[in-house]
Amino acid sequence: MKQVEGGVCAPKGFLASAIYSEIKKNSQSKDLALIFSEVPATAAGVFTANRIKAACVTISKEHLKNNKAQAIAVNSGNANCCTGEQGYKDAKQIAAVTARSLGIDTRDVLVSSTGVIGKLLPMGNIINHIPKLAEGLNIKNSSEVAAAIMTTDKVKKEIALKMRIGKSVVNVGAIAKGSGMIYPNMATMLAFVTTDANIDAAALKFALKECVDKTFNSITVDGDTSTNDMVLILANAAAANKKITLETKSNFNKFKGGLLEVLQYLAKAIVRDGEGATKLIEVCVKGAKTGKDAKIAASTVCNSNLVKTAIYGQDANWGRIAAALGRSGAFLEENKLSISLGKVKIFSHGSPTGAREEILKEILSKDEVVIDIDLGLGNAAVTMWTCDLSEEYIKINAKYRT
Amino acid sequence: MKQVEGGVCAPKGFLASAIYSEIKKNSQSKDLALIFSEVPATAAGVFTANRIKAACVTISKEHLKNNKAQAIAVNSGNANCCTGEQGYKDAKQIAAVTARSLGIDTRDVLVSSTGVIGKLLPMGNIINHIPKLAEGLNIKNSSEVAAAIMTTDKVKKEIALKMRIGKSVVNVGAIAKGSGMIYPNMATMLAFVTTDANIDAAALKFALKECVDKTFNSITVDGDTSTNDMVLILANAAAANKKITLETKSNFNKFKGGLLEVLQYLAKAIVRDGEGATKLIEVCVKGAKTGKDAKIAASTVCNSNLVKTAIYGQDANWGRIAAALGRSGAFLEENKLSISLGKVKIFSHGSPTGAREEILKEILSKDEVVIDIDLGLGNAAVTMWTCDLSEEYIKINAKYRT
Repeated sequence: MKQVEGGVCAPKGFLASAIYSEIKKNSQSKDLALIFSEVPATAAGVFTANRIKAACVTISKEHLKNNKAQAIAVNSGNANCCTGEQGYKDAKQIAAVTARSLGIDTRDVLVSSTGVIGKLLPMGNIINHIPKLAEGLNIKNSSEVAAAIMTTDKVKKEIALKMRIGKSVVNVGAIAKGSGMIYPNMATMLAFVTTDANIDAAALKFALKECVDKTFNSITVDGDTSTNDMVLILANAAAANKKITLETKSNFNKFKGGLLEVLQYLAKAIVRDGEGATKLIEVCVKGAKTGKDAKIAASTVCNSNLVKTAIYGQDANWGRIAAALGRSGAFLEENKLSISLGKVKIFSHGSPTGAREEILKEILSKDEVVIDIDLGLGNAAVTMWTCDLSEEYIKINAKYRT
Repeated sequence: MKQVEGGVCAPKGFLASAIYSEIKKNSQSKDLALIFSEVPATAAGVFTANRIKAACVTISKEHLKNNKAQAIAVNSGNANCCTGEQGYKDAKQIAAVTARSLGIDTRDVLVSSTGVIGKLLPMGNIINHIPKLAEGLNIKNSSEVAAAIMTTDKVKKEIALKMRIGKSVVNVGAIAKGSGMIYPNMATMLAFVTTDANIDAAALKFALKECVDKTFNSITVDGDTSTNDMVLILANAAAANKKITLETKSNFNKFKGGLLEVLQYLAKAIVRDGEGATKLIEVCVKGAKTGKDAKIAASTVCNSNLVKTAIYGQDANWGRIAAALGRSGAFLEENKLSISLGKVKIFSHGSPTGAREEILKEILSKDEVVIDIDLGLGNAAVTMWTCDLSEEYIKINAKYRT
């Protein structure tokens, strides 16, 4: 597997475009974008588990029922969520107008939104700009699209890689956004993946689901799940490889490995760019009785404001890790529990090891901090990622709409 | 019911004392305290649900098995938690030395600690100071004890009230601490309640449990449950009222009403003094299908960093409330959901009402903010309290141990 340039336009047959359509206040930032496959693509999606779902989630799910799509229309600056019947009609209209501009079927357009909840979209502006957006489609625009979907993100998130499957070169490209409201099932995030792989719908769905569980569903910034989360993948078969199915085990696994690499890169990039984050924190839990125990233990540590602020302050206050584990609901016995910080054991089978503060301070001064937790009870393990919590998070979120 | 002076010493026959014993770095703040009943009292307690429990929790539970106690010895500055076998022996020794100084049985001493996790207590200092602590017992010292148990608290939390039960005047006094690690089951908090009521153990336990559920178990500052939480009550019968039992319904309810008032005052005081808090937020959920749904809906809103930072920023970004409800796990239907801010409806049966921003801004400029949520599905309701989340919370917690 090798990284390549081009983001979502790295796979053959994909074009992209972005424009400013007066949704965001700042006319310097684009806010409407389009990803287009020259031919209809096999498609799959994973969506928010929030019971409040934005209109775009409902519509994209409907449009994916035939496992086929050709375009993704996405806006930032307004989530078009909690906007009632009108919001639904608006999202539907975006799909319809985009389809008309591209000369394709409305059902082949997936829609996506991110931004403030509870406000109607400025539909006049959006509709007026869609034809120009479609005209701008180009293989050079992946970065512009990655920028156009940003909200509080500071860094664009884009990647592409190529791999050999059989005799063909297959490319996978992707962009993502999201830095607040990040929580399993799922992060507040959008990720759009393109590939020129020739793969059937069942294999594509399965690969996406598995890879999302290990990546986007294993990160958290603030424990808040958004109403608009979605990961979409379009596979247009332009690589002309022998069709990948669930039965072609080795090729399927190779494709899934590439997809996992792409999504893990983006998931970690999202956390590293978490609102106000100064550090990436990796929490590895092992020795749990069950997989569920491992996951709630890791996620409770990842979501603890007290753990996150201590790491921000470079204070090895590991008692907070123990306290978070204790309230997580995971089965645990204090005298079997061990905790390490950056591979230095600080708590071993229920007793502090007396690890030297200077060494721990040094570990916490790094940009990436690894917390290893061994519950000492079984064989289940899980890894999750989060970021620290700083004053900057508060500043960003106290005045988000102003 | 009438408020009176004296805190935990307002009820007849209770004395208190506090001292600096070199646990905290700052010698200006006391860190060791004692509450004493001149006669053995009926006693009950409610303890943390965290699976990691401090030694003092284990020991106080053991000592309460006979429903009897005469003294509470409490230190701040060190939680004596995750300290292994030695920590347990240390807590036990504090009980023993206190008992000896008071001339009572070790089993009649309850112990309690709050502060940093994972460090052994400076036992020499503590043991040396206990005799002097016991000598200092006095009916004037409730406020000093309230101050001695503070950690990051900015404000002392103390209250007492009197009520008439039959022909007798019964007093209930209490102090509490806690401002971070505050979360149901339970807050990181200590609360010590004294009463001169004559009440049997079953009635005392039942009243305490019910009142704690509606007060300390209905507040949250940061979603973190401590390892040391406890609420203790001593009832020494000095008021000489006709014994209250579960059968003396009217007197029992009167006593419980007084206790509820005392605990609610303290619970709200804890949240108002939440680390970095600038506002008290009351979240009232009604129309839930089940009581459990009401509670998870309210607690998810209360624990949402995004809701809390928006309110801190006086930004009526109510979409975050909807998003938190949606991910809470409570059953909900968007088109039945309504949300009000300070009695102004902002979201009604699935649609925004277009409430004016200036009015909402005015509501959010107040020190107390009420969020009313109607799920529109059933009859279950619950009220919880939290505070906003400010930069100050981060500052406090990033450098807590330094």
